[in-house]
Amino acid sequence: MRERVTVCEVGPRDGLQMAKSRMSTAVKTRWIAAMAESGVPEIEVGSFVSPRLIPQMSDTAEIVRRAVLLPRVIIVALAPNLRGAQEAYAAGAHRISVPVSVSEGHSRANLNRTPDEQVAEVARIVSWVRGQDRPMEVEGACSTSFGCSFDGRVATASVVRVAVELAAVGVDMVALADTVGYAHPSLIRSVVRAVRGEIGARLDGLHLHDTMGLGIANALAGLEEGIRNFDAALAGLGGCPFAPGASGNIVTEDLVFMLESMGFDTGIDLDRLIRARDILAEGLPAEALHGQVSVAGIPKTFRVAA
Amino acid sequence: MRERVTVCEVGPRDGLQMAKSRMSTAVKTRWIAAMAESGVPEIEVGSFVSPRLIPQMSDTAEIVRRAVLLPRVIIVALAPNLRGAQEAYAAGAHRISVPVSVSEGHSRANLNRTPDEQVAEVARIVSWVRGQDRPMEVEGACSTSFGCSFDGRVATASVVRVAVELAAVGVDMVALADTVGYAHPSLIRSVVRAVRGEIGARLDGLHLHDTMGLGIANALAGLEEGIRNFDAALAGLGGCPFAPGASGNIVTEDLVFMLESMGFDTGIDLDRLIRARDILAEGLPAEALHGQVSVAGIPKTFRVAA
Repeated sequence: MRERVTVCEVGPRDGLQMAKSRMSTAVKTRWIAAMAESGVPEIEVGSFVSPRLIPQMSDTAEIVRRAVLLPRVIIVALAPNLRGAQEAYAAGAHRISVPVSVSEGHSRANLNRTPDEQVAEVARIVSWVRGQDRPMEVEGACSTSFGCSFDGRVATASVVRVAVELAAVGVDMVALADTVGYAHPSLIRSVVRAVRGEIGARLDGLHLHDTMGLGIANALAGLEEGIRNFDAALAGLGGCPFAPGASGNIVTEDLVFMLESMGFDTGIDLDRLIRARDILAEGLPAEALHGQVSVAGIPKTFRVAA
Repeated sequence: MRERVTVCEVGPRDGLQMAKSRMSTAVKTRWIAAMAESGVPEIEVGSFVSPRLIPQMSDTAEIVRRAVLLPRVIIVALAPNLRGAQEAYAAGAHRISVPVSVSEGHSRANLNRTPDEQVAEVARIVSWVRGQDRPMEVEGACSTSFGCSFDGRVATASVVRVAVELAAVGVDMVALADTVGYAHPSLIRSVVRAVRGEIGARLDGLHLHDTMGLGIANALAGLEEGIRNFDAALAGLGGCPFAPGASGNIVTEDLVFMLESMGFDTGIDLDRLIRARDILAEGLPAEALHGQVSVAGIPKTFRVAA
C-alpha cells in the first residue's frame, strides 16, 4: 500500500488569472476535463471575483457548473468574500478556498481589508455555508505565509495567529501559501511545525510558487513535515504580479513525477497528464509553458503510475 | 558561525561541452574570473579530452593555466585517462575529476571501457600523480549513480562497489553524479547513505542535473544527508545528450539562494554571481539561460551574503 498524496491543480485559477491572453470557456472546459481524466483528484477551476478586476475569471460560474459533472474530482473555487462564496455555492462547488493575507501590505493591496477584517469575513462565510442544505467545504488559505513583497519578512507568530483564528471560526482546512515565492526549505519546515503545533492536521495544504527555483524543494520539505496536499499548476502556469517574467506555481507534472518516484500514490497517470499540456498550449498559444519532465520525457526508470 | 557548503561551478566544463556554439578563450577567461571574484570557491574549467570529440574543450590547457592564477579558487579539470591527467598536471590544475560510469552501457558509450577497466585507469592516474613533485587532488566521479539512459535502473550495490574501489585505489574524494537526471530525493538519500556506510566522508560531493525538474530538491535531500559539496552551473548551462531540449546542471544561482537562505555559508556574493550571467550571454548568445532568482530578482527578505 502506497501512501496517498493529493495534488490540487490550480492552473485554471491561479495560472489563468496571470495569463496575458484569455482562454475560451470551451477550451477551459476541455482542459479541466482532460486533467480530471488523468486522475487529478482536486481542481481549483476559477475565482469568484469581480470580472472587472480579473476578466479571465468571468466565466467561473459556468466553468464550475460544468466541472462538477466530472466524476471523481473535487471542484474548488476561490471566493474572497461572502458574495463569492454564495455564487460558488449556487454553481455547485464542492469546496471554496478563501484567501486571508497574513501580511498587512498584501492584505490591503489584494483584498482592501486588514487580516482581522478578512478573518471576520471568513467567519461570516462559514456561518452562512453551515446554514445551507448542501455541504460545501471551506478552506482558509493563508497568503504571504513565507514572506511578502510589500512587508518583507512575515513573522511565524503572525502566520500561527491567522491559522489559529481560521481554525477557531470553523474552516474545514487551512493551507499556507507562498504567494510571492520567497520560501526556502528551512522556513517551510519551521512555519509548518509551528502551525501544526497549534492546529494539528487542520493544516493540510501548501500552495507553492517556483519564483526563486525552490518550489519543488519546498514541496519536499513540506512532504517531510507531513504535508500531504499540494497545489500545483500544469506547465507551471502563472507568474507573480510582483516579479515580471518570474515563473508561476510549481509544475504539476514535475511534482507528480517526484511524488510517484518516491513511492507515493497520487492517483495520476503522468503520461495522460502531460498530454493535457496540448490543450493548454492550444488555448493560450502565447503563454510560456514551464516544466522539465514533459520536455525530457518520462525516463524508463519511472515507476508505472497506478 | 554558519556552516560552510562548497559549490563547485562546472558550467565551463559540463555546460560548455553541451553548448551548440563555442565560447572564445577570451570570454571564457573573463567568465571564469568573474565567477571567482563573486566568491565561487571551486570551478571546473574544462576537460582534457580529444579536441576532435569535444572541440569546445580544445583550449582547456590554456584556460587552466590562466585560471590557476586567480586567488582563492580551486581549479578543477576533468581528465578521463592518464594522458588527460598528465596534461592537467602540466597546466597546473589543483584537482582532476576522473569519471567512472557505474553502468556498463554508459561506460562503453562514454569511455569505451568497462567500469572495471576505468577503475584500473584511475589506479594508474593516482599512482602517477602521487609520484609528482606538486600535489594534485584526484576526485573519482561515479557517473550514472542514479540511473542510466542505456541500462535503466542502476543497483545501489553497483554504486557502492565502484565507490569502494575508487576509495581503495586512493582517490582523495568520491562524488556521485546523476548524469542523466533520473534521481529523486528518496534515491539520493538511500544511495548516499549506502556509500557513506562504506567509505564515510570520502564521499563528499553530488553532481546533479535538473533534467526532470528535481535537481534542487535532490540537492536538498543530499544536504540533509550531510553532503556539503555540490556541482552546479551558472544559468543551468548544458543539457543532456540523451534528452534533447532538457535542462542541464542545477542552477548555481538558485542553489546558492537556497543554501544562503537556509543559513549555510557559501562564501558567494549572489548579486555578483548573477551579474556573471551577462558574460555568459555575451559569449554564447544563442544559448538558453535557465534559473529563476536572476529573473525574479533577489527578494528583500534574502539574507545579506557574507
